[in-house]
Amino acid sequence: MDQQSIDAALRARAAKVIPGGMWGHQNATRVPVGYPQYFSRSEGCRIWDADGRSYIDYMCAWGPMILGYGDPDVEEAAARQRAQGDGLNGPTPRLVELAELMVDTVAHADWAMFSKNGTDATTACVTIARAGTGRRKVLVARGAYHGAIPWCTPSVAGVTEEDRAHLVYYDYNDAASLEEAAGSVKGDLAAIIVSAFKHDLGKDHVLPERAFAHAARRVADEADAALIVDDVRAGFRLDMGGSWELVGVKPDLSAWSKAIANGRALAAVTGNDRFREGARSIFTTGSFWTAGVSMAASIATITKLRNTDAVGLMSASGERLRAGLQAQARKYGLALRQSGPAQMPVFLFEGDEDRSLGSRFCVEALNRGVYFHPTHTMFLSAAHTSEIIDETLEITEEAFKAVAHVHEELAAKAG
Amino acid sequence: MDQQSIDAALRARAAKVIPGGMWGHQNATRVPVGYPQYFSRSEGCRIWDADGRSYIDYMCAWGPMILGYGDPDVEEAAARQRAQGDGLNGPTPRLVELAELMVDTVAHADWAMFSKNGTDATTACVTIARAGTGRRKVLVARGAYHGAIPWCTPSVAGVTEEDRAHLVYYDYNDAASLEEAAGSVKGDLAAIIVSAFKHDLGKDHVLPERAFAHAARRVADEADAALIVDDVRAGFRLDMGGSWELVGVKPDLSAWSKAIANGRALAAVTGNDRFREGARSIFTTGSFWTAGVSMAASIATITKLRNTDAVGLMSASGERLRAGLQAQARKYGLALRQSGPAQMPVFLFEGDEDRSLGSRFCVEALNRGVYFHPTHTMFLSAAHTSEIIDETLEITEEAFKAVAHVHEELAAKAG
Repeated sequence: MDQQSIDAALRARAAKVIPGGMWGHQNATRVPVGYPQYFSRSEGCRIWDADGRSYIDYMCAWGPMILGYGDPDVEEAAARQRAQGDGLNGPTPRLVELAELMVDTVAHADWAMFSKNGTDATTACVTIARAGTGRRKVLVARGAYHGAIPWCTPSVAGVTEEDRAHLVYYDYNDAASLEEAAGSVKGDLAAIIVSAFKHDLGKDHVLPERAFAHAARRVADEADAALIVDDVRAGFRLDMGGSWELVGVKPDLSAWSKAIANGRALAAVTGNDRFREGARSIFTTGSFWTAGVSMAASIATITKLRNTDAVGLMSASGERLRAGLQAQARKYGLALRQSGPAQMPVFLFEGDEDRSLGSRFCVEALNRGVYFHPTHTMFLSAAHTSEIIDETLEITEEAFKAVAHVHEELAAKAG
Repeated sequence: MDQQSIDAALRARAAKVIPGGMWGHQNATRVPVGYPQYFSRSEGCRIWDADGRSYIDYMCAWGPMILGYGDPDVEEAAARQRAQGDGLNGPTPRLVELAELMVDTVAHADWAMFSKNGTDATTACVTIARAGTGRRKVLVARGAYHGAIPWCTPSVAGVTEEDRAHLVYYDYNDAASLEEAAGSVKGDLAAIIVSAFKHDLGKDHVLPERAFAHAARRVADEADAALIVDDVRAGFRLDMGGSWELVGVKPDLSAWSKAIANGRALAAVTGNDRFREGARSIFTTGSFWTAGVSMAASIATITKLRNTDAVGLMSASGERLRAGLQAQARKYGLALRQSGPAQMPVFLFEGDEDRSLGSRFCVEALNRGVYFHPTHTMFLSAAHTSEIIDETLEITEEAFKAVAHVHEELAAKAG
């Protein structure tokens, strides 16, 4: 990045007024050198950084964008609601319409509640499970991300032992470890929380195995505990009925956020009647949780996702991208390991332990106009048409060529 | 409320798809019968319920509205940003501009971070204090509201003992109790958290005493702990530099939300350099925390608040309302106890232990077009001009007349 760039100037100013220059997952020190920190514009599946360079975007704002930035149907619904009112002294009728739509859309749902962050939703699920069962222990998969407050944040800074006193860990897709964890807290099990699929940072992504998913359902039932699916990251990209419809398991509670309003701040909890009283009994709220505009946007988003088979389109585009990348990697003698659902892919290079090859490949793509992430789940949207995939593949061809060259040089030097 | 009303029909539908029909502080079962649950429109200082009845609004969406609903300057800034982009793969330049503006505006602030809920901000303050000090205990005033997740929610449903293991309680404005609480956790004190003023639900509101505020600062300093002011509810209504500027005390950390973006979902933490490293070290984040539109709205809001002496206007309007209500109450032989800052008032009737008189008065005002809250902090905005106050007082005159009549009848019956 040019030292005189707008991005560099903004970073220098930010260093003074924001601790560490930036917090959380969007801190550009978490992506390779050369990636921009600041962005200025978006349209369809494209974003522009602060210096005006445009990219085909495979992060979709880290998931929230699912129909395309500025989708006209969503924007129209949001603008119509804005003209009426957003946050008021109580909800707008959009709350009821959206709750009905979630119940109609999500297979396990008898009811819905809304909030703003994915963390609000996962935290509410756990609290509802505890309130509904009168028990305390929650089984969590090792390495899974469920949010960023002390009970679940991946960091330990500022976290006390007591914040996680009632968490017990198991391994994703390992039914025996789940049963062992449940056995260790007999009589005190409130909930099992599972991600829609295993999407740990920097690791191959793994879909839930059917046997594991059914074991999770059985273990929860035997203990009369809640099965919680954390669908914050995957929600409405894999299955409109909820991601675990793919393995034939209905959770008791699900946490939603990211894509449900095509980018506007909204989160949701859906639940079944078994946990209705638990949900009613807790006190959770926020100043903006009933605001009408994000709910109007969500209604428009979900309706359009349903009516256009967006899941099918995203999956097909993801498969097209995956096949193209695989062929290119082979052509240039690089072993690319692609995993996760096609519409939420991650790709890692075989043997690239320090991620230097992956980083280099992503920077080469970035410099040619494609925004990938080298270690995190990526996201496709309904705006990623087959034409966009083909445009992407023309760029990745050049990126592969560039890194194959470097790769060979390095191999020669090492030899 | 008419059984055939739109509000009643929405409530009936909600009862099926939302646990208890509604969650949290906006549940209309928490206000007297006759209050609407659903709202459909807003403009300036007025809101309309779902059945089209309009009210002069003294809740301001429970605080977020501070310049008037649909303030043209804020809406223009937000619309301009929306046309460029909202949530992207990283922040927009608005992040830096807003952080600089917060640092320039808030007296104690060397830096700022942003999130979505007041609870996000209070939780981050506590986490930063623990990270920065390496200690655990947090002193909290009995009965104070600091948010709605397990460590702080007023309910106990779904909360475990460990969620509050490191909280120690003191009494607001009681320096001795604060010192005693600090003494009980010697060597392990991370923070003291105080509300901007004592605004507990259903109680007279009490401003911080100067001696108490300075004692809080001293106790924190002696223990090398953080003094946190929770300015979520009061922020930018009492003093643009932070509410404790009024008592001459600078906190280390402050939590902000509600009014900072005139209704759009935004929260902030501001801190001093002593806690910059603690803030840098924690991992807190959310999918929508860097979205540009709410930040553009916040920049426009803060700029306008500063340029128009909104605090002075709100205070003057609040005093005009208070004086008018006091004169009317006296005229009708009712003992009205008004407390809190004039721009964030609460009023309770003397001897009205079951709140029946207060509820009746509020319903009489509601039915004539003024939306008060019988037990919670109310809020004035810059749109509450002296003309609006006078219009309000014409209505409250009638409301007092109505309850004085009932009051006398009841007194006669009782006699």
